[in-house]
Amino acid sequence: MPGGTEDGTLRRYRRACDYLAAAMIHLKDNVLLREPLRPEHLKPRPLGHWGTCPGLTLVYAGLNRLVSETGQRTLLVTGPGHGAPAIHANLWLEGTHAEYDPRLSLDERGLADLVTRFSWPGGFPSHLSPEVPGVIHEGGELGYALATAFGAAFDDPGLLVACVIGDGEAETGPTAAAWHSPKFSGPDDGRVLPILHLNGYKIASPTIYEAMSDDELVAYFTGCGWHPTIVDVRGTDDPDTPLAEALARAHEHDTGHPPMIVLRNTKGAGLPPATPDGTPLEGTFHAHQVPLSGAADDPRELAELERWLRSYRPEELFDENGVPAADILTVPPAPELRLGRVPQANGGLLRRDLPLPEVAKYSVAVDEPGATDAGATEVLAEWLAEIVRRAPSTFRVVCPDELESNKLGALLEATPRQFDREVSGYTEHLGPRGRVHEVLSEHLCQGWLQGYLLTGRHGLFPCYEAFVSIVDSMVNQYAKFLKMSGEVDWRAPVASLNYLLTSDGWRQEHNGYSHQGPGFINQMLTKKATTSRIYLPPDANTLLETMHRCLGSTGLINVVVAGKQSGPQWLSPDEARAHCRAGAGVWPWAGNTEDAADVVLACAGTTPTVETLAAARLLRETAPELRVRVVNVVDLLSLCPPGRHPNGMSDEAFGDCFGDGTPVVFAFHGYPSAVHEVLHGRPRTDRFHVHGYLEEGTTTTPFDLLASNRMTRHDLAADAVRRAAGWASAGGDLARELLRRRDSILRQSYQDGEDPAEITGWRWHP
Amino acid sequence: MPGGTEDGTLRRYRRACDYLAAAMIHLKDNVLLREPLRPEHLKPRPLGHWGTCPGLTLVYAGLNRLVSETGQRTLLVTGPGHGAPAIHANLWLEGTHAEYDPRLSLDERGLADLVTRFSWPGGFPSHLSPEVPGVIHEGGELGYALATAFGAAFDDPGLLVACVIGDGEAETGPTAAAWHSPKFSGPDDGRVLPILHLNGYKIASPTIYEAMSDDELVAYFTGCGWHPTIVDVRGTDDPDTPLAEALARAHEHDTGHPPMIVLRNTKGAGLPPATPDGTPLEGTFHAHQVPLSGAADDPRELAELERWLRSYRPEELFDENGVPAADILTVPPAPELRLGRVPQANGGLLRRDLPLPEVAKYSVAVDEPGATDAGATEVLAEWLAEIVRRAPSTFRVVCPDELESNKLGALLEATPRQFDREVSGYTEHLGPRGRVHEVLSEHLCQGWLQGYLLTGRHGLFPCYEAFVSIVDSMVNQYAKFLKMSGEVDWRAPVASLNYLLTSDGWRQEHNGYSHQGPGFINQMLTKKATTSRIYLPPDANTLLETMHRCLGSTGLINVVVAGKQSGPQWLSPDEARAHCRAGAGVWPWAGNTEDAADVVLACAGTTPTVETLAAARLLRETAPELRVRVVNVVDLLSLCPPGRHPNGMSDEAFGDCFGDGTPVVFAFHGYPSAVHEVLHGRPRTDRFHVHGYLEEGTTTTPFDLLASNRMTRHDLAADAVRRAAGWASAGGDLARELLRRRDSILRQSYQDGEDPAEITGWRWHP
Repeated sequence: MPGGTEDGTLRRYRRACDYLAAAMIHLKDNVLLREPLRPEHLKPRPLGHWGTCPGLTLVYAGLNRLVSETGQRTLLVTGPGHGAPAIHANLWLEGTHAEYDPRLSLDERGLADLVTRFSWPGGFPSHLSPEVPGVIHEGGELGYALATAFGAAFDDPGLLVACVIGDGEAETGPTAAAWHSPKFSGPDDGRVLPILHLNGYKIASPTIYEAMSDDELVAYFTGCGWHPTIVDVRGTDDPDTPLAEALARAHEHDTGHPPMIVLRNTKGAGLPPATPDGTPLEGTFHAHQVPLSGAADDPRELAELERWLRSYRPEELFDENGVPAADILTVPPAPELRLGRVPQANGGLLRRDLPLPEVAKYSVAVDEPGATDAGATEVLAEWLAEIVRRAPSTFRVVCPDELESNKLGALLEATPRQFDREVSGYTEHLGPRGRVHEVLSEHLCQGWLQGYLLTGRHGLFPCYEAFVSIVDSMVNQYAKFLKMSGEVDWRAPVASLNYLLTSDGWRQEHNGYSHQGPGFINQMLTKKATTSRIYLPPDANTLLETMHRCLGSTGLINVVVAGKQSGPQWLSPDEARAHCRAGAGVWPWAGNTEDAADVVLACAGTTPTVETLAAARLLRETAPELRVRVVNVVDLLSLCPPGRHPNGMSDEAFGDCFGDGTPVVFAFHGYPSAVHEVLHGRPRTDRFHVHGYLEEGTTTTPFDLLASNRMTRHDLAADAVRRAAGWASAGGDLARELLRRRDSILRQSYQDGEDPAEITGWRWHP
Repeated sequence: MPGGTEDGTLRRYRRACDYLAAAMIHLKDNVLLREPLRPEHLKPRPLGHWGTCPGLTLVYAGLNRLVSETGQRTLLVTGPGHGAPAIHANLWLEGTHAEYDPRLSLDERGLADLVTRFSWPGGFPSHLSPEVPGVIHEGGELGYALATAFGAAFDDPGLLVACVIGDGEAETGPTAAAWHSPKFSGPDDGRVLPILHLNGYKIASPTIYEAMSDDELVAYFTGCGWHPTIVDVRGTDDPDTPLAEALARAHEHDTGHPPMIVLRNTKGAGLPPATPDGTPLEGTFHAHQVPLSGAADDPRELAELERWLRSYRPEELFDENGVPAADILTVPPAPELRLGRVPQANGGLLRRDLPLPEVAKYSVAVDEPGATDAGATEVLAEWLAEIVRRAPSTFRVVCPDELESNKLGALLEATPRQFDREVSGYTEHLGPRGRVHEVLSEHLCQGWLQGYLLTGRHGLFPCYEAFVSIVDSMVNQYAKFLKMSGEVDWRAPVASLNYLLTSDGWRQEHNGYSHQGPGFINQMLTKKATTSRIYLPPDANTLLETMHRCLGSTGLINVVVAGKQSGPQWLSPDEARAHCRAGAGVWPWAGNTEDAADVVLACAGTTPTVETLAAARLLRETAPELRVRVVNVVDLLSLCPPGRHPNGMSDEAFGDCFGDGTPVVFAFHGYPSAVHEVLHGRPRTDRFHVHGYLEEGTTTTPFDLLASNRMTRHDLAADAVRRAAGWASAGGDLARELLRRRDSILRQSYQDGEDPAEITGWRWHP
């Protein structure tokens, strides 16, 4: 039972929170039990997760005390987001809720509103969410709390980020990886205090961490580089004191390995030991969700529920107006220090525009299309390095050990990789202070960056395109967080989440089939139009323009796919700017007609653009009378009808590119389905014949890879003459001849082990 | 340098392997250096990863010795799959390569073929792959070796699975989680011996594990439940002896915590210390990929490359015919024990059909459509339990702690969850031997199951639909492995990978927006048609039929999406069988015309089917003269044109369902784009108006969730009357009236906190 008559203030505070949490799950009326509990007081669909609530409040109360005593600015990241009732209760008692929404006042009306609004249609969701003050982490899909906490602490040396991690969540891989985060955290970063909330059970089983002995727990966390303290409050009459001591010690700790706390407590503490039919409750997994959920239909359960709720003695905690007792209201810290009001949790308000350099200075001079070679990411890296110099504490780059491989090494001239451990062996560009993190975990990269962005800063995540799918589900959840944040009026937009996907499958020099996977584009297409952007700049200058746009934007997830290999440059800086603004457009110099075309050759992506231009040249040589228009697409979503996506180009612009009924042979970087999907809703889409990645590949030459996916210049040209209006028969012969040429080149390359010069040395202007 | 004149046999064996690996990366001719090395002997595109090769061979040689001495049947799972040259060298020397491909004979011709075929168009990929004997793990995307190894060991008590994990891979979350796998491994399972290959560097940085002290390493692995041994062979003249001792001790180990080995060695051991221009090589990250890659153009590099290759003194290792020296050939074990020949690595040959029970006994009696209620997964669980009973060592179920939540609890009547640790608290259905694994890590579930399937067994992965995206990238890689396996003639097909996705977003009673995500369907649509299957059975009997089909299939990834909530049952067992065989079909009893229809109401998925049937009833009441046909789709890919997917229904069958030009209002479980994608290539697809999940949602009532995604029965009926031919004006009025009804129901449910009886108690037959 929750307590004796001698309860101290902190315990009374927790009793109030626990009562409110239990009430939120069960009650829609009679919220202070002024009357005997009757079925009609119960929510018809009792929803929520009780099991973690008492523990979350224990931590929240402990942090309140720490903050009050030390004035420490503290952000709480709650891994068990399904313990939302506990957080709501604390936010209400500290007055934060009333500040954001006056209807949640600190009296009976506000209390009733809080209780009934939880898990009610149109009310608060059952999990933490952007609607809740102080929250930067939803905690529905588990595994990302700890990495998010580290991201929030980077470059904020005065901040303490307390992070509760459930022992269920601790079974996940991303959490297991994140325990190593201190090695990547430097002396100018804030501190993260992880609290492993070890209450023993997930939904229906004991957890891994419950099955570990204290010795194993200490060994494990010591091995990860922490100084662990086990605080076991099971069966204790006074859990607050040992936790407070551990928190105080952790706060004072300032040398050696950073502190973390393992909080062993009782799952669903405060519940009756069992239901009337004998199912055990307190301290078991049966406490996980709604205890006594049958109360509406079973009088014995109803009676037990009433006994349980009354065991908190709400009448001692709230006065006749529902106002919490004065002593309880002394527990939360001064208003400016409340956990729910920490400014970092509404990072959009802290965000300042990045001091982006003009791209002009970094552009490649392009006097004529295709005459200059450059590596797009190498060019970009110089520009990024300048951002790093200009924004020494608000911009970070996370990457799975691929910066050099992605030809972004110039960044490392401006900053080392941040790594706060001595290494005896040979290293380059490594130091305790740096703007760049390299860790072979896309999960850590993503989690760190999310925490960093949501607290008001900026960042970039360069990644091998095929492996960014490792964070598909994290992106799903982040997109949801952004979407809901946009619907909350007091949340200011944060800087966009920017991906630079490179080392794409078409040019995987050292790797093979496993490194080919453009599916992240398809993944992004499932997101809301208000959130998603997908760009495929075909050369260095368009990449610079695109990145300038992305790093200046807010509230979006920008996916930029760009090549890292040296290759032909197509557009001058001015042309690149205009082209990127339009999203897509005709490259008149590449076609041979200003009027109606027999066929449109369209392309999106670095390699498809090269092949399309080569196809256009092939056609000029082999079918000079064929009228060809060439269209390049940088902004994939510009192809959407404008009603479906804000970037969708007007019908008129679309017609300028693709005509009304002209056949289009479209060479696409990714799966063809992505193009069909964005075109949905445009007129006569069956005239678009999309070439793309067909999931065929191995370690081979670039041209062979194109051939196995039917996307060589010969395939495109052959398709063009076959599709072009009026070319059916002549086209067939020419197509066969083109494909014979392709096969002859392939045979040669199989013998030589490399693509012949006519492919690798190809130039737009002969 | 690799060795003195006194080299023993094992060292000479390793010298031969290292030489071959280096030659594979660099040479296309003069493979035994009979002549001075000239640029024309070099591959024009030298590809491959040298850094990990010497360590992999050290381990392979050590395992050879262990296997020879003990006769231990051993499977090697190589995490660093990019170290393929080392594995190829060992496979060639042990004769396995020649057995699978006589051209790879143990003489100079075979040697030259091996060397030139590596990373050559049409040859061996640069990574391990299904083309390579003994391989069940590609190792391109890192993180899954250890979980795969555990899966391979389950139910195979005589097997030792040695698993090499690179220290780069060890930074990943999935690997970090997998260190806890022994807790889920029982006394009837084989043993896994992890060898952490700690050579200090990933591509360009030191690794986390390199930065850990020996004390930290021991603490970490002890904490995870292992008995770790650190074998540091850096600078040792004889690395084989300490490793052999550690392997022997590990093999003899039989009580207490299982053994694991941390092998500290020198990255790229055997290389010169630096390139001619002074870049350090041996023992640094510069040894990661191709050392001395500029040899073709730089005479100094060429000379250094020659010196390096000659330092292995190939003339002492191979005779004038290129045959390896006799002593070297004594190192590999007897043929039947070779690592490359272990039968478990070609699991399809070991696979036996599951003894699947007939579904008839488990079916639900359905005398008339919609009159009976049942929970599909509850019904299925009884059938699955019987499989568990009949196949006590060849079928496993992996699940992220959601069996009970997904209403599959009946399985636990047949088997406990396997968990080999004592837990002092309250538990249910837990034991050291069990057919079910519950761990809150989708990565572990997936990795374990992959290892289990690839070694010839069967399994099922039930998962919350929204969270299966956590393994998107693992599925990408597994699909690639299956696709390539199908192209290797000696690989027999393994049992299919089966997902049961439930607790879907439409009925997330305790959760909200984060638990809504049907994107895995879209993800599967990017896979080869030879690999992917997607089923959405709308009730219990169709689920039984579908699962029977999936568990009897091979070589596929089957995704089954099914409801867990009790709901109306539509088809009798016989009807269900016929319907599932067809993939999709008309439900004549649900429409009101046997001839031409004004509109088709189509549906796929449990909730959309309910709403569609309700819409059909609404239309019968409100627009009786409207001719409606109702079509249900179980096999989503049956909608594909038959040329695009083997499950695609014939044009005639498609016409029977959807007519030629009839408008179709399609209610789909997932994102509408998935339906448009599968329809691509069918005639007149613009008449399909797809309702589905629009990424709108929170914790609310099921009907509200449908409404916010425009998929209530009223939305569907309103769309039908608007789209139906000739109904433009009358339809508009009726549509408005239907949507008014919807809104009135919603207002009521916001007040009551639940959907009203007319929604929840709705029946097909009034």
